[in-house]
Amino acid sequence: MKRCEWCNLSEEDKKYLLSDTKYWTVYLADEQDYIGRCIIVLKRHCGSLPELKDDEWMELFLLIKKYEKCIKTVFNAEHCNWSCLMNSFYKSPEPCPHIHIHARPRYKNPVVINGNTYLDNNFGHHYSSGRTEQMCSKEDIQTIYGLLKKWLNS
Amino acid sequence: MKRCEWCNLSEEDKKYLLSDTKYWTVYLADEQDYIGRCIIVLKRHCGSLPELKDDEWMELFLLIKKYEKCIKTVFNAEHCNWSCLMNSFYKSPEPCPHIHIHARPRYKNPVVINGNTYLDNNFGHHYSSGRTEQMCSKEDIQTIYGLLKKWLNS
Repeated sequence: MKRCEWCNLSEEDKKYLLSDTKYWTVYLADEQDYIGRCIIVLKRHCGSLPELKDDEWMELFLLIKKYEKCIKTVFNAEHCNWSCLMNSFYKSPEPCPHIHIHARPRYKNPVVINGNTYLDNNFGHHYSSGRTEQMCSKEDIQTIYGLLKKWLNS
Repeated sequence: MKRCEWCNLSEEDKKYLLSDTKYWTVYLADEQDYIGRCIIVLKRHCGSLPELKDDEWMELFLLIKKYEKCIKTVFNAEHCNWSCLMNSFYKSPEPCPHIHIHARPRYKNPVVINGNTYLDNNFGHHYSSGRTEQMCSKEDIQTIYGLLKKWLNS
Protein backbone atom coordinates (compact mmCIF):
# COMPACT_ATOMS: atom_id res chain seq x y z
CA MET A 1 0.00 0.00 0.00
CA LYS A 2 1.36 3.35 -1.09
CA ARG A 3 0.84 5.30 2.11
CA CYS A 4 2.03 2.51 4.42
CA GLU A 5 5.58 2.97 5.71
CA TRP A 6 5.87 -0.75 6.42
CA CYS A 7 5.06 -1.59 2.80
CA ASN A 8 7.78 0.83 1.71
CA LEU A 9 10.76 0.19 3.95
CA SER A 10 13.97 1.85 2.82
CA GLU A 11 17.23 -0.02 2.29
CA GLU A 12 18.38 1.57 5.57
CA ASP A 13 15.28 0.14 7.35
CA LYS A 14 16.12 -3.28 5.94
CA LYS A 15 19.75 -3.30 7.00
CA TYR A 16 19.14 -5.81 9.80
CA LEU A 17 17.12 -8.30 7.77
CA LEU A 18 17.53 -11.70 9.42
CA SER A 19 15.13 -13.91 7.55
CA ASP A 20 12.85 -13.70 4.52
CA THR A 21 10.26 -16.43 4.09
CA LYS A 22 7.15 -16.80 1.93
CA TYR A 23 4.90 -14.50 3.96
CA TRP A 24 7.11 -12.78 6.57
CA THR A 25 10.39 -10.99 7.05
CA VAL A 26 12.28 -10.89 10.34
CA TYR A 27 14.38 -7.88 11.29
CA LEU A 28 16.66 -7.33 14.24
CA ALA A 29 15.26 -4.27 16.03
CA ASP A 30 17.34 -1.09 16.04
CA GLU A 31 16.77 -0.93 19.78
CA GLN A 32 18.56 -3.81 21.46
CA ASP A 33 17.23 -3.08 24.97
CA TYR A 34 16.60 -6.83 25.05
CA ILE A 35 19.47 -8.60 23.31
CA GLY A 36 18.23 -10.22 20.11
CA ARG A 37 14.99 -8.22 20.06
CA CYS A 38 13.31 -8.72 16.68
CA ILE A 39 10.29 -7.68 14.65
CA ILE A 40 8.43 -10.08 12.38
CA VAL A 41 6.71 -8.20 9.55
CA LEU A 42 4.04 -9.52 7.16
CA LYS A 43 5.08 -9.06 3.52
CA ARG A 44 1.63 -7.94 2.37
CA HIS A 45 -0.42 -5.07 3.73
CA CYS A 46 -2.83 -6.34 6.38
CA GLY A 47 -4.08 -4.47 9.41
CA SER A 48 -4.88 -6.99 12.12
CA LEU A 49 -4.32 -10.59 13.25
CA PRO A 50 -7.88 -11.73 12.38
CA GLU A 51 -7.26 -10.73 8.76
CA LEU A 52 -4.28 -13.07 8.37
CA LYS A 53 -4.72 -16.05 6.09
CA ASP A 54 -4.36 -19.55 7.52
CA ASP A 55 -1.06 -20.12 5.68
CA GLU A 56 0.35 -16.86 7.06
CA TRP A 57 -0.71 -17.83 10.59
CA MET A 58 0.95 -21.24 10.21
CA GLU A 59 4.19 -19.80 8.85
CA LEU A 60 4.25 -17.36 11.78
CA PHE A 61 4.18 -20.38 14.08
CA LEU A 62 7.20 -21.88 12.31
CA LEU A 63 9.06 -18.58 12.68
CA ILE A 64 8.23 -18.34 16.39
CA LYS A 65 9.60 -21.85 16.91
CA LYS A 66 12.77 -21.14 14.94
CA TYR A 67 13.40 -17.76 16.54
CA GLU A 68 12.96 -18.98 20.15
CA LYS A 69 15.31 -21.89 19.49
CA CYS A 70 17.79 -19.45 17.98
CA ILE A 71 17.91 -16.97 20.87
CA LYS A 72 18.02 -19.78 23.44
CA THR A 73 20.91 -21.42 21.61
CA VAL A 74 22.89 -18.31 20.68
CA PHE A 75 22.35 -16.09 23.75
CA ASN A 76 20.98 -18.49 26.39
CA ALA A 77 17.68 -16.59 26.64
CA GLU A 78 15.32 -18.00 29.25
CA HIS A 79 12.10 -17.31 27.37
CA CYS A 80 10.60 -14.76 25.02
CA ASN A 81 7.93 -12.05 25.26
CA TRP A 82 5.67 -11.98 22.21
CA SER A 83 3.32 -9.14 21.36
CA CYS A 84 1.24 -7.76 18.53
CA LEU A 85 0.20 -4.25 19.52
CA MET A 86 -0.03 -1.82 16.56
CA ASN A 87 -0.66 1.14 18.85
CA SER A 88 1.45 3.77 17.08
CA PHE A 89 -0.61 3.52 13.90
CA TYR A 90 -3.65 4.75 15.83
CA LYS A 91 -2.07 8.11 16.58
CA SER A 92 -3.04 9.02 13.03
CA PRO A 93 -6.56 10.28 12.23
CA GLU A 94 -6.49 7.77 9.37
CA PRO A 95 -4.72 4.70 10.76
CA CYS A 96 -3.08 2.41 8.25
CA PRO A 97 -1.90 -0.48 10.45
CA HIS A 98 0.44 -3.14 9.07
CA ILE A 99 0.81 -6.41 10.97
CA HIS A 100 4.09 -6.90 12.82
CA ILE A 101 4.99 -8.95 15.86
CA HIS A 102 7.52 -8.00 18.53
CA ALA A 103 9.86 -10.59 20.04
CA ARG A 104 11.75 -9.64 23.17
CA PRO A 105 14.06 -12.35 24.56
CA ARG A 106 14.30 -12.35 28.36
CA TYR A 107 17.44 -13.21 30.30
CA LYS A 108 18.03 -14.66 33.73
CA ASN A 109 21.78 -14.50 33.13
CA PRO A 110 23.99 -11.71 31.78
CA VAL A 111 24.77 -11.70 28.05
CA VAL A 112 28.32 -10.78 27.06
CA ILE A 113 28.90 -9.26 23.61
CA ASN A 114 32.44 -8.22 22.66
CA GLY A 115 33.32 -8.08 26.34
CA ASN A 116 30.32 -5.85 27.19
CA THR A 117 27.86 -7.26 29.71
CA TYR A 118 24.11 -6.80 29.22
CA LEU A 119 21.63 -7.48 32.01
CA ASP A 120 17.87 -7.97 31.84
CA ASN A 121 17.20 -5.81 34.87
CA ASN A 122 13.47 -6.52 34.98
CA PHE A 123 13.60 -10.26 34.34
CA GLY A 124 10.46 -11.86 35.85
CA HIS A 125 8.53 -8.65 35.24
CA HIS A 126 6.92 -6.87 32.31
CA TYR A 127 9.41 -5.61 29.75
CA SER A 128 10.25 -1.94 29.88
CA SER A 129 8.24 -0.26 27.12
CA GLY A 130 9.94 3.11 27.29
CA ARG A 131 13.42 3.94 26.12
CA THR A 132 15.96 2.39 28.44
CA GLU A 133 19.41 3.60 29.27
CA GLN A 134 21.10 0.31 28.46
CA MET A 135 21.87 0.66 24.78
CA CYS A 136 24.09 -1.40 22.57
CA SER A 137 26.96 0.07 20.59
CA LYS A 138 26.77 -0.19 16.79
CA GLU A 139 29.56 -2.76 16.95
CA ASP A 140 27.67 -4.94 19.42
CA ILE A 141 24.47 -4.72 17.37
CA GLN A 142 26.44 -5.82 14.33
CA THR A 143 27.79 -8.78 16.30
CA ILE A 144 24.30 -9.77 17.52
CA TYR A 145 23.01 -9.48 13.96
CA GLY A 146 25.84 -11.62 12.59
CA LEU A 147 25.38 -14.35 15.18
CA LEU A 148 21.59 -14.58 14.76
CA LYS A 149 21.75 -14.44 10.99
CA LYS A 150 24.36 -17.18 10.87
CA TRP A 151 22.28 -19.45 13.13
CA LEU A 152 18.99 -18.76 11.33
CA ASN A 153 20.47 -19.43 7.91
CA SER A 154 22.56 -22.48 8.76
CA MET B 1 0.42 -30.53 36.42
CA LYS B 2 0.08 -30.65 40.19
CA ARG B 3 2.21 -27.63 41.12
CA CYS B 4 0.87 -25.38 38.33
CA GLU B 5 -1.71 -22.85 39.54
CA TRP B 6 -3.10 -22.50 36.02
CA CYS B 7 -3.79 -26.23 35.83
CA ASN B 8 -5.62 -26.00 39.14
CA LEU B 9 -7.80 -22.91 38.94
CA SER B 10 -10.38 -22.60 41.71
CA GLU B 11 -14.08 -22.10 41.09
CA GLU B 12 -13.51 -18.48 42.15
CA ASP B 13 -10.76 -18.12 39.48
CA LYS B 14 -13.18 -19.49 36.90
CA LYS B 15 -16.05 -17.19 37.73
CA TYR B 16 -15.58 -15.09 34.59
CA LEU B 17 -15.33 -17.99 32.13
CA LEU B 18 -16.42 -16.68 28.73
CA SER B 19 -15.66 -19.51 26.38
CA ASP B 20 -14.52 -23.14 26.59
CA THR B 21 -13.35 -24.77 23.37
CA LYS B 22 -11.41 -27.94 22.58
CA TYR B 23 -7.97 -26.63 23.58
CA TRP B 24 -8.49 -23.24 25.23
CA THR B 25 -10.58 -21.39 27.78
CA VAL B 26 -11.22 -17.65 27.69
CA TYR B 27 -11.68 -15.67 30.90
CA LEU B 28 -12.60 -12.06 31.42
CA ALA B 29 -9.71 -10.57 33.41
CA ASP B 30 -10.40 -9.47 36.98
CA GLU B 31 -8.69 -6.19 36.11
CA GLN B 32 -10.79 -4.30 33.59
CA ASP B 33 -8.28 -1.46 33.07
CA TYR B 34 -9.07 -2.02 29.38
CA ILE B 35 -12.77 -2.79 29.01
CA GLY B 36 -13.24 -6.37 27.86
CA ARG B 37 -9.69 -7.39 28.74
CA CYS B 38 -9.40 -11.18 28.55
CA ILE B 39 -6.99 -14.04 29.07
CA ILE B 40 -6.92 -17.09 26.80
CA VAL B 41 -5.58 -20.12 28.67
CA LEU B 42 -4.43 -23.43 27.20
CA LYS B 43 -6.28 -26.37 28.76
CA ARG B 44 -3.19 -28.58 29.02
CA HIS B 45 0.07 -27.75 30.74
CA CYS B 46 2.54 -26.32 28.22
CA GLY B 47 5.23 -23.75 28.88
CA SER B 48 5.86 -21.81 25.67
CA LEU B 49 4.40 -20.95 22.27
CA PRO B 50 6.85 -23.18 20.33
CA GLU B 51 5.57 -26.18 22.27
CA LEU B 52 1.98 -25.72 21.11
CA LYS B 53 0.58 -28.33 18.74
CA ASP B 54 -0.58 -27.27 15.28
CA ASP B 55 -4.25 -27.83 16.19
CA GLU B 56 -3.89 -25.68 19.30
CA TRP B 57 -2.23 -22.91 17.27
CA MET B 58 -5.06 -23.03 14.70
CA GLU B 59 -7.79 -22.94 17.34
CA LEU B 60 -6.07 -19.95 18.94
CA PHE B 61 -6.40 -18.17 15.60
CA LEU B 62 -10.15 -18.88 15.53
CA LEU B 63 -10.47 -17.49 19.07
CA ILE B 64 -8.52 -14.33 18.19
CA LYS B 65 -10.85 -13.73 15.24
CA LYS B 66 -13.98 -14.32 17.30
CA TYR B 67 -12.82 -12.24 20.27
CA GLU B 68 -11.79 -9.20 18.16
CA LYS B 69 -15.11 -9.28 16.34
CA CYS B 70 -16.87 -9.50 19.69
CA ILE B 71 -15.19 -6.51 21.36
CA LYS B 72 -15.53 -4.42 18.21
CA THR B 73 -19.23 -5.23 17.99
CA VAL B 74 -20.12 -5.03 21.67
CA PHE B 75 -17.90 -2.15 22.86
CA ASN B 76 -16.77 -0.48 19.63
CA ALA B 77 -13.09 -1.23 20.32
CA GLU B 78 -10.73 0.17 17.71
CA HIS B 79 -8.23 -2.65 17.79
CA CYS B 80 -6.68 -5.09 20.23
CA ASN B 81 -3.28 -5.56 21.88
CA TRP B 82 -2.20 -9.20 21.97
CA SER B 83 0.64 -10.53 24.08
CA CYS B 84 2.13 -13.75 25.36
CA LEU B 85 4.62 -12.82 28.06
CA MET B 86 4.80 -15.37 30.92
CA ASN B 87 7.15 -13.17 32.94
CA SER B 88 5.71 -13.77 36.42
CA PHE B 89 6.46 -17.47 36.28
CA TYR B 90 10.16 -16.66 36.05
CA LYS B 91 10.24 -15.03 39.48
CA SER B 92 10.33 -18.56 40.84
CA PRO B 93 13.65 -20.44 41.11
CA GLU B 94 11.79 -23.34 39.49
CA PRO B 95 9.56 -21.74 36.86
CA CYS B 96 6.51 -23.71 35.82
CA PRO B 97 5.08 -21.57 32.99
CA HIS B 98 1.64 -22.26 31.56
CA ILE B 99 0.69 -20.75 28.21
CA HIS B 100 -1.81 -17.90 28.33
CA ILE B 101 -2.43 -14.97 26.00
CA HIS B 102 -3.49 -11.49 27.04
CA ALA B 103 -6.03 -9.52 25.01
CA ARG B 104 -6.41 -5.82 25.75
CA PRO B 105 -9.00 -4.00 23.62
CA ARG B 106 -8.06 -0.41 22.82
CA TYR B 107 -10.54 2.44 22.54
CA LYS B 108 -10.56 5.66 20.60
CA ASN B 109 -13.97 6.50 22.03
CA PRO B 110 -15.30 6.34 25.59
CA VAL B 111 -17.12 3.19 26.67
CA VAL B 112 -20.21 3.66 28.84
CA ILE B 113 -21.22 0.85 31.21
CA ASN B 114 -24.25 1.37 33.45
CA GLY B 115 -23.87 5.11 33.01
CA ASN B 116 -20.16 5.05 33.96
CA THR B 117 -17.74 6.33 31.35
CA TYR B 118 -14.41 4.57 30.76
CA LEU B 119 -11.62 6.17 28.73
CA ASP B 120 -8.54 4.59 27.17
CA ASN B 121 -6.24 7.39 28.28
CA ASN B 122 -3.19 6.06 26.47
CA PHE B 123 -4.85 5.10 23.18
CA GLY B 124 -2.23 5.19 20.40
CA HIS B 125 0.46 4.26 22.94
CA HIS B 126 1.64 1.16 24.77
CA TYR B 127 -0.87 -0.17 27.28
CA SER B 128 -0.26 0.65 30.90
CA SER B 129 1.28 -2.44 32.48
CA GLY B 130 1.08 -1.31 36.09
CA ARG B 131 -2.05 -1.04 38.19
CA THR B 132 -4.15 1.84 36.99
CA GLU B 133 -6.49 4.03 38.97
CA GLN B 134 -9.41 3.50 36.61
CA MET B 135 -11.09 0.45 38.01
CA CYS B 136 -14.48 -1.00 37.27
CA SER B 137 -17.06 -1.64 39.95
CA LYS B 138 -18.13 -5.25 40.49
CA GLU B 139 -21.47 -4.37 38.93
CA ASP B 140 -19.85 -3.00 35.77
CA ILE B 141 -17.56 -6.05 35.48
CA GLN B 142 -20.63 -8.25 35.76
CA THR B 143 -22.30 -6.26 32.98
CA ILE B 144 -19.21 -6.50 30.72
CA TYR B 145 -19.05 -10.24 31.41
CA GLY B 146 -22.72 -10.71 30.61
CA LEU B 147 -22.54 -8.79 27.34
CA LEU B 148 -19.42 -10.57 26.07
CA LYS B 149 -20.66 -13.99 27.12
CA LYS B 150 -23.98 -13.44 25.40
CA TRP B 151 -22.28 -12.37 22.16
CA LEU B 152 -19.68 -15.16 22.22
CA ASN B 153 -22.27 -17.86 22.82
CA SER B 154 -24.96 -16.63 20.45
